[in-house]
Amino acid sequence: MSELTGNLLVAQSGGPTAVINASLAGVIQEAGRHECIEEIYGGLNGVLGILNEELIDINEERSRTIEGLKTTPGAALGTCRYKIDFKKKPAAAARDMDRLFEVLAAHNIRYFHYIGGNDSQDTAHKIHEQALARGYELRVNGVPKTIDNDLPHTDHCPGYGSVIKYVGATVMEITTDVSAMATDDGACCVIEVMGRSAGWIAAGAVLAQRQPGDAPHLILTPEILLDEAAFLEKVRAVVAINKYCVIVVGEGVRNAAGQELGADASRLDAFGHPVLSGAADHLAEVITEKLKLKTRTVKLGYAQRAAAHFASLTDATEAAACGVAAVRAAVEGKTGFMVKIVREQSSPYQWTTGLQPLGDIANVERLIPRDWFTADGFLPNEKFVEYARPLIEGEVKVTIEGGLPRFVELVKSRVEKKLPPRA
Amino acid sequence: MSELTGNLLVAQSGGPTAVINASLAGVIQEAGRHECIEEIYGGLNGVLGILNEELIDINEERSRTIEGLKTTPGAALGTCRYKIDFKKKPAAAARDMDRLFEVLAAHNIRYFHYIGGNDSQDTAHKIHEQALARGYELRVNGVPKTIDNDLPHTDHCPGYGSVIKYVGATVMEITTDVSAMATDDGACCVIEVMGRSAGWIAAGAVLAQRQPGDAPHLILTPEILLDEAAFLEKVRAVVAINKYCVIVVGEGVRNAAGQELGADASRLDAFGHPVLSGAADHLAEVITEKLKLKTRTVKLGYAQRAAAHFASLTDATEAAACGVAAVRAAVEGKTGFMVKIVREQSSPYQWTTGLQPLGDIANVERLIPRDWFTADGFLPNEKFVEYARPLIEGEVKVTIEGGLPRFVELVKSRVEKKLPPRA
Repeated sequence: MSELTGNLLVAQSGGPTAVINASLAGVIQEAGRHECIEEIYGGLNGVLGILNEELIDINEERSRTIEGLKTTPGAALGTCRYKIDFKKKPAAAARDMDRLFEVLAAHNIRYFHYIGGNDSQDTAHKIHEQALARGYELRVNGVPKTIDNDLPHTDHCPGYGSVIKYVGATVMEITTDVSAMATDDGACCVIEVMGRSAGWIAAGAVLAQRQPGDAPHLILTPEILLDEAAFLEKVRAVVAINKYCVIVVGEGVRNAAGQELGADASRLDAFGHPVLSGAADHLAEVITEKLKLKTRTVKLGYAQRAAAHFASLTDATEAAACGVAAVRAAVEGKTGFMVKIVREQSSPYQWTTGLQPLGDIANVERLIPRDWFTADGFLPNEKFVEYARPLIEGEVKVTIEGGLPRFVELVKSRVEKKLPPRA
Repeated sequence: MSELTGNLLVAQSGGPTAVINASLAGVIQEAGRHECIEEIYGGLNGVLGILNEELIDINEERSRTIEGLKTTPGAALGTCRYKIDFKKKPAAAARDMDRLFEVLAAHNIRYFHYIGGNDSQDTAHKIHEQALARGYELRVNGVPKTIDNDLPHTDHCPGYGSVIKYVGATVMEITTDVSAMATDDGACCVIEVMGRSAGWIAAGAVLAQRQPGDAPHLILTPEILLDEAAFLEKVRAVVAINKYCVIVVGEGVRNAAGQELGADASRLDAFGHPVLSGAADHLAEVITEKLKLKTRTVKLGYAQRAAAHFASLTDATEAAACGVAAVRAAVEGKTGFMVKIVREQSSPYQWTTGLQPLGDIANVERLIPRDWFTADGFLPNEKFVEYARPLIEGEVKVTIEGGLPRFVELVKSRVEKKLPPRA
């Protein structure tokens, strides 16, 4: 273990989650426990803000605010989708890296933690490699985050448990509604959730089933191309039994030809422009037309990944622990890793954190194995359920004021800039 | 006070809410306290099930289940949108009424409580009038219910407080997400909520504003025709200040020509109203095209009216009290009323229940007064806030099992049929 004294910089990137701020709190609180870490800075809007030297002084924030981050959704530092892309824009990427290391050096930053998904871990990996190449002593450890749950090597990703807990509860609630309204005419509800290429969120809705046959009756994921005829037959059969059918669909589900359902270019509006509807709206149209069933849609959108008011305590706890682990590893001299969650056993659930080289993460996307679905592909099976069930356990206690959540906001006291503006 | 001994029939109608079952629990628990009420029956799927003599014996249900109804969304007895329509189908309506009174007489039903919105109170009113005309001694008192909050004479409707509490929290959460992602490019999110002709739900989202200028930045309601140019200018101005803009839109919002933004005139529901969808998608298209801002949509659909996991305790308490009051009034000899909520004062909030003749309710729809909006019509003002704020106070405690809500279900022990099937 080599002692390295200097400042710490933490930033957030990509789509927010209900618990990405819990990871931020974990980083900050752990950093405060180590004397080798002098100042704690936050980079605004991820690497984009860092390039613009937009740093805030975390030690100016109240401890109560930092603790409150653990139940505040969004991303308190702001995020970005900015990519330092050496492949497509090598000259710009080289300039960005020069600038980035100027900023790091100007503020004596020796610890860097990037909280994010695939692209963010890729960025962290590049910064790690550049630090080595430039001989700039910097400890870079990524903290995983993504509702999509598609990062490799980690058992699951912070953010995922909360989104499927919320989606599961929402499916249960909608089912009480749809079933109450169902008459002999039959009725369907299609609930669209996020997940462009991985179906983890849609699949997680299966936890709403207390018994076999409960809603959701069908779950469509991007992993399995949709056989429309088989789908309609299944819906028909479910309605014949229940009088209603609840379907969960991931936004990126594709048809047998491999085209996204929601990007059907064959339909034109009054001006002759293609109508781009969502996957749920598309399915509702098909069901209405082919089965003559009244079908309503729900599109949870951003609501699902921000739903702190029903976040998973397990998820929030793990998210914070990942932040803590990243700092601990750095203080112990480790760099170039992403923290991962290691499942020790499912029942009772036991987990710990581990480290995975950042180079193993970038651009690898983990999908749901085919044998985690039923034979017909319309529902996840018991293997998936065993995997997902522990992740939604426990409820985060959000502060309520006047009947609504009271989230914290950072004061964002700016660190004085030491460099000329970015060219 | 005239003593009337016999059985009680309760049924639910129209769209479910997070608390319509709390009203049912109120009716059942109060009915159990009066010796003049012998059996307590539930009618399945509203008047439709009653016509088919589909009654269940509530005394076969466990007390724990009845108590659990207070935190279970949906409509435990099932609902319908069936209308006994003397105007459009006089012969069928006359047959229905004959059949209905056969069922009531066959089961010695002397107390009838219908829990529902405008159309359901209209049905209750007709049954009351028919009972008088037929000389059948029946006490008919309606229990109000509707997330739309558009019933006249009652200060507000059970179901409304819960939906705006959920929508308010969701707007707050989505705002943390949108604001975290906002860069100089600007971003918008349009959240579509229910409200066919009244904008109470959309307006309720204003409670998410902790301070002036907070999201939601614009709220569009059916009460005010949309001036698209003024709307776009307002969005542009908000984005110039915040880099992002959060908009809440009621599904029934109309343009300057009076046409619904999301109307599809080809689809009609059982009452002949057009099925609306797509106000948010329409606005997102306009914003993207005219302002070149990345715009996402959220369509909460059924999720909003079933969200028991974040229901208002004030709302659930009032819903149960309305059920209690309906039975008490009937036992005291009153008939032909709808229970209403009477506000005694707003701060601190004090309320009681009252009675309004059913004839005053039918086909009257209450809209938001124009002077409850700001001058430009894009936000409700302090008059609305004073009205709505008390309704979301307190949180219902839903039983959680395995990380998800545990709702109750009725056993639904059928009452033996005494009549031949409905012709």
